[in-house]
Formats: sequence, C-alpha cells, structure tokens
Amino acid sequence: MAEVKSSVNNGVNVEALLAAREALTKAPEAALFKFRAACEWKNGTHSHSTVKSFYGLGQEQQHRSTFTFDADHPEIFASEDKGATPGEYVLVALASCLTAGIAAVAQHRSIQLRSVTATIEGDIDAQGILGIDSDVRNGFSGIKVTYKIDADAKREDIEALVAQSQKRSAVYDIVTNPTNVTVVVE
Amino acid sequence: MAEVKSSVNNGVNVEALLAAREALTKAPEAALFKFRAACEWKNGTHSHSTVKSFYGLGQEQQHRSTFTFDADHPEIFASEDKGATPGEYVLVALASCLTAGIAAVAQHRSIQLRSVTATIEGDIDAQGILGIDSDVRNGFSGIKVTYKIDADAKREDIEALVAQSQKRSAVYDIVTNPTNVTVVVE
Repeated sequence: MAEVKSSVNNGVNVEALLAAREALTKAPEAALFKFRAACEWKNGTHSHSTVKSFYGLGQEQQHRSTFTFDADHPEIFASEDKGATPGEYVLVALASCLTAGIAAVAQHRSIQLRSVTATIEGDIDAQGILGIDSDVRNGFSGIKVTYKIDADAKREDIEALVAQSQKRSAVYDIVTNPTNVTVVVE
Repeated sequence: MAEVKSSVNNGVNVEALLAAREALTKAPEAALFKFRAACEWKNGTHSHSTVKSFYGLGQEQQHRSTFTFDADHPEIFASEDKGATPGEYVLVALASCLTAGIAAVAQHRSIQLRSVTATIEGDIDAQGILGIDSDVRNGFSGIKVTYKIDADAKREDIEALVAQSQKRSAVYDIVTNPTNVTVVVE
C-alpha cells in the first residue's frame, strides 16, 4: 500500500493541504479569505475584469500574475462578442472547481489520474432576462456536467471521487445554494 | 426628449433587443439557449477551459473566436497559481453580468454613461472546503459589489439603474438562488 501511494502523482501536494488543515484548525481566523475582482465597463455589454490580490492567512496576498478577462454578449444579441458571456464564466468556474477537487481527492485516495475532461452545459430561457415572462427565471434552469475520467481505479471509485469533489466544492455550493449578495453605489 | 434620446450612446443596440423581445414573444422556443464550456485537467489543481459554441434561436451558434481560461489555486494552497481560482471566476461572472445590464438599462432609459467600475469581494471560510468544520459552507458566506458610476443622471436614477440590472441579471439569479446541477461520469 505504501508503494502504491508513493507512485501516485496527480500534481497535488496533499501533505501540504493536510498540514494546512491542521494549522487552520488551531488558528481558524487564518482560514478567512477574501477573493476579489475589479470590473471596468468598456462599451455596450463589453467589460474588462482583473484579478490580482486576495486576503488570506491573516494578510494581503498577490497572485503570481494579474489575470484579465473580457466578457460580452454574442452578436445574435446585437453585441460584439468580445468575450465569453457572464453565464459561460459561471460554467468555467463550476467545471474548474469540480475538476481541481477530483485531482485533490484522487491524490488523497492514491488514485492515479491519466486524463479528466468535462463538458458542461447550462440551459437558459432568454424570456427571463428579456422580461418577456416574469415566471421564467433569469439564470440557468439547470446545469449538466459530464465527466470522462481515465484513471487507475474501478468505475465505482471514480464515481466516488466525483461525488466527494461535489461535496467539497466552493462553486458547486455557490451555484446550488443561495448566496447573499449586496450591491451598493458609492 | 427625442433629442436627448438620440444623443445617448452607451454602445447597446436597444432597438435590436426590443425587436428580439417581440420576436421571441411570438416564438418562445427560439428563446431556449444552451451555453457550454469544456474543461480539461492539466495537472494538480490546474485546468484549461474553452468556450466556443452555444445553441440559441433554434440552431447551433459559434462565438466569433474561441475563449480559453486557465484556473488554478494559489501558491499558498500548495498549487502553481496558473490561473484565477474558480471562486474568482464566479466574481468575474457576477460583476460582468451586472455591468452589462447597467449599460443596457441606461441606454433604454436614455442615460449617458461616462464610466462604470465595480469592485467585487467574496468572503470564504476555508474551514469548509478543507473539511475542518461541517457547519461552515464551502462557498462564499457573502459577496459585496461596489459600483462607481459617472453618468448624466441623478444619484437616485443611477441607483435605480443598478437595481434594475440586478432584477434582470442571469448571474445574480444563479448566485442568489439555487440552481439544479447534475454531475455524471460517462
């Protein structure tokens, strides 16, 4: 068993994560993080966002580089399609969160991953956002994520990996449960 | 009033959106959209996602270009910080959705925008995702969006713009209300 464990490498440093868990159990205030983005309107429905700093472990932190994102609506909505739509950013968030979790859980369970790919699709009825029918919600009526996973494990163990990733995913929680949002004008 | 209207240009084609609303009222099945992303695990918590096609107006559609996104965890989580975190993607989604809505509503209300910037911050207690305390949720405990808006309008009209954008925002709905997510392994 020890031999199997040492040969598994999904690129996740589980020892560091377990050490962090132990450290944060003793100092829970260090577990309070603030993540941020800044968004600047460009023109029409096009905006440009940047992600650089966050707060955690009791102090300000910086990403290694500044990440930038353009968002827009497509041409069939009379926009210029200069970036993915905001809804597509939610899909990227959810798929990437579940995928990171699958890698971390696989490492913890000594399962070698060879490949993990997901397709994610969200259904939306534009009658909501266009104000045609107030009974139609603005957001996705449902989202489906389909994984293809090639790993040194039985199918039931692969399914258990995915289930555990859902159980600990920040974005899965955000999408499936209500989150309080406050919007203010300065 | 007509003069004021013709001089306002926020880059949003409101006439086209109103025409779309009228067309979709008569053909509601054309309002059913499917948005998609594909996510590929790279190594550790790093994944690469692409956004290219979607479905709407009764047929397959393509973005003008393929949008690509790297997601990762930061170095203080023992990762390589090769992209924004999934939670930060949610913040980008929410800020860009509200900002696009502000521009569209402003155009409809003949309010000339000069600049719109938002900062968005989400609080997260990592005791949730690390499994330290099962009473702590995995996702954001709360999100705050702060707008600075320079526009040819009174403060109360600017606040009403932001409120109307929240009312019609897909991502605001997704974050503040539960969405059904199905995850399957092929």
